[in-house]
Amino acid sequence: MQEKLTLMIPGPTPVPESVLQAIGRHPIGHRSGEFQEIVKRTSNQLKWLHQTNSEVLTITGSGTAAMEAGIINTLSRGEKVVCGENGKFGERWVKVAKAYGLNVEIVRADWGQPLNPEEFRAILEADTNKEISAVILTHSETSTGVLNDLQTISKHVQDHGKSLIIADCVTSLGACNVPMDKWGLDVVASGSQKGYMMPPGLSFVAMSDRAWQACEKSDLPKFYLDLNLYRQAAIKNSNPFTPAINLFFSLEVSLNLLQKEGLDAVFSRHARHQAAAIAGMEAIGLSIFSAKGHRSPAITAVNPKNINAEDLRKAVKEKYDILLAGGQDHLKGQIFRIGHLGFVNDRDVLAAIAAIEATVQSLDKKHQTTGDGIKAAAKILS
Amino acid sequence: MQEKLTLMIPGPTPVPESVLQAIGRHPIGHRSGEFQEIVKRTSNQLKWLHQTNSEVLTITGSGTAAMEAGIINTLSRGEKVVCGENGKFGERWVKVAKAYGLNVEIVRADWGQPLNPEEFRAILEADTNKEISAVILTHSETSTGVLNDLQTISKHVQDHGKSLIIADCVTSLGACNVPMDKWGLDVVASGSQKGYMMPPGLSFVAMSDRAWQACEKSDLPKFYLDLNLYRQAAIKNSNPFTPAINLFFSLEVSLNLLQKEGLDAVFSRHARHQAAAIAGMEAIGLSIFSAKGHRSPAITAVNPKNINAEDLRKAVKEKYDILLAGGQDHLKGQIFRIGHLGFVNDRDVLAAIAAIEATVQSLDKKHQTTGDGIKAAAKILS
Repeated sequence: MQEKLTLMIPGPTPVPESVLQAIGRHPIGHRSGEFQEIVKRTSNQLKWLHQTNSEVLTITGSGTAAMEAGIINTLSRGEKVVCGENGKFGERWVKVAKAYGLNVEIVRADWGQPLNPEEFRAILEADTNKEISAVILTHSETSTGVLNDLQTISKHVQDHGKSLIIADCVTSLGACNVPMDKWGLDVVASGSQKGYMMPPGLSFVAMSDRAWQACEKSDLPKFYLDLNLYRQAAIKNSNPFTPAINLFFSLEVSLNLLQKEGLDAVFSRHARHQAAAIAGMEAIGLSIFSAKGHRSPAITAVNPKNINAEDLRKAVKEKYDILLAGGQDHLKGQIFRIGHLGFVNDRDVLAAIAAIEATVQSLDKKHQTTGDGIKAAAKILS
Repeated sequence: MQEKLTLMIPGPTPVPESVLQAIGRHPIGHRSGEFQEIVKRTSNQLKWLHQTNSEVLTITGSGTAAMEAGIINTLSRGEKVVCGENGKFGERWVKVAKAYGLNVEIVRADWGQPLNPEEFRAILEADTNKEISAVILTHSETSTGVLNDLQTISKHVQDHGKSLIIADCVTSLGACNVPMDKWGLDVVASGSQKGYMMPPGLSFVAMSDRAWQACEKSDLPKFYLDLNLYRQAAIKNSNPFTPAINLFFSLEVSLNLLQKEGLDAVFSRHARHQAAAIAGMEAIGLSIFSAKGHRSPAITAVNPKNINAEDLRKAVKEKYDILLAGGQDHLKGQIFRIGHLGFVNDRDVLAAIAAIEATVQSLDKKHQTTGDGIKAAAKILS
């Protein structure tokens, strides 16, 4: 039976009915007082979500647009940046930086392993001429389910004194603690189809005072992603270009839901679902791909060993109408990924574990469904 | 009585219920077969709307993003371009071209007047060294209600032999005839909240073979707006970045509606509403701002003479809940603009004329409502 899809991918994530109802309203003028009120309210709510006093700007575009905006508004041609790369999104920011002629040094870790903060420390300490203008990295590496130690790396960047830190928090913001001001983050980028519990189409970029100072000197060409234009419009609770008005309607509703739940409750919900997913998979005998102690609360990457991950994923979709994510690039067929990000409840997590266990049995005749996955998960959820 | 808003602005435009229902569906995975089918179908429908065999790419972003993409994917730093400028959007493309270091020559006309094709011809003919790489202009200048003679200017560009023609068709596509292939247009940009009868958030850029050839040599930096990435993804009926999935749902429905109506009927609907709006305004004694014979089928700009246009606009909104557009920049207070673009019916046009006439009387005690506006409009509509 189809038409009853449950999304368990790291975006788009499931969307509450009230958010969908809001998106289906008739559009209003984006220069109207009513719309300006929505921009004003959501701007304040976004500051709350980012735990910051800085302005959080909303762009109509994907999370990539927000990250690109953060990079090209704070840097100038030829400047040196250090990019962390331990997955597909880390690779992407290297590509963006190179596309704009930045001088990129890469700190690598194997896919599934976290970036080593000590490597960043060593590079930053060795930079006595203060040539490094920015450290760019992904907090939650969606492709591998790894959570990089953004807090510690940010501390090393603070100690450097000159470099900015630009963070892709697309699948961490709204899933775990990302206190922008407390951690001293300069640019935080995120996207609506993640912890925001919304459809895709809006992205968000928050910039510290230091980032805005760098922005004044930035010479990289831009127009649609020129954050100065967004900042000037934000003063009037407006947008420089016609925004996705209907997505703003839903943004307000989803942020209301998050505020009602409270940040701590949102984070512990994600932690609980993550723990249940991991325990469930391990109890079934499947191994977790990402390194222990460095796992993202948004997504659990699983290595199903002697089963092709794509076969499992397709079977779970076909029989149970649960959409899991596959492995990307060289990991295709090797891992599948369970998204427990955004509007996911305990039932969704239990159902996914049960469906995966039943599917493992159907693909691997040596495997007997014992219910051990559910048993382990239930212990955590209850 | 509020909460019963009628949009008569040049975007966002009114949206049919079926399109709003589609946008409120639960998101699906953007890498799923089901979504690829939507991309495939809408891609073909977009070719139909553009009257082209070229690929039409869909970007999550505003019309400005699509125009910027067209410019920065076909040109290289320092190249010479000729920009038409007779309104706010013409000005914008000059800004974009300059932001990317292009060498801009401007062909100007007063706001309200059309660009003179002869000026383009003269400049292109004089360019015997073939230094001009592109002519950039706005077809329907939304800020003034002027329709520039894109067909004739495009002919002069063809005669030049080397230059591309890049056209902002944001408020002309889906309102009047823009046969991309027949006219030899190289880049056509548009946005969803216009003739598409959709909420804002998607934009579209169609590129000719010549434009793609230029794209291979283009050295301007880009990533989110790199159309090569969109083209590669389009081969697989996909998108390079997470698209606004819910807007794609509505895109398919709105394009179905347009196809059912037929291009000729869509164009004659806009022409009829335009003629009624002009006749109505003139019968009331208000003058049309844009030059006769060069008026956009999307929007009628009106000069209410001894009445402040903003006062009239506010009164029409407050009393009748019809949102008209104001004048932009130096035209603020001098003109108002009636949008008759997209999902507008004869009743909307009649109601707007009637509301404007009644409001003129309330603001100008010398004016008596005679019904002449409706009389003139009805003659055209019936």
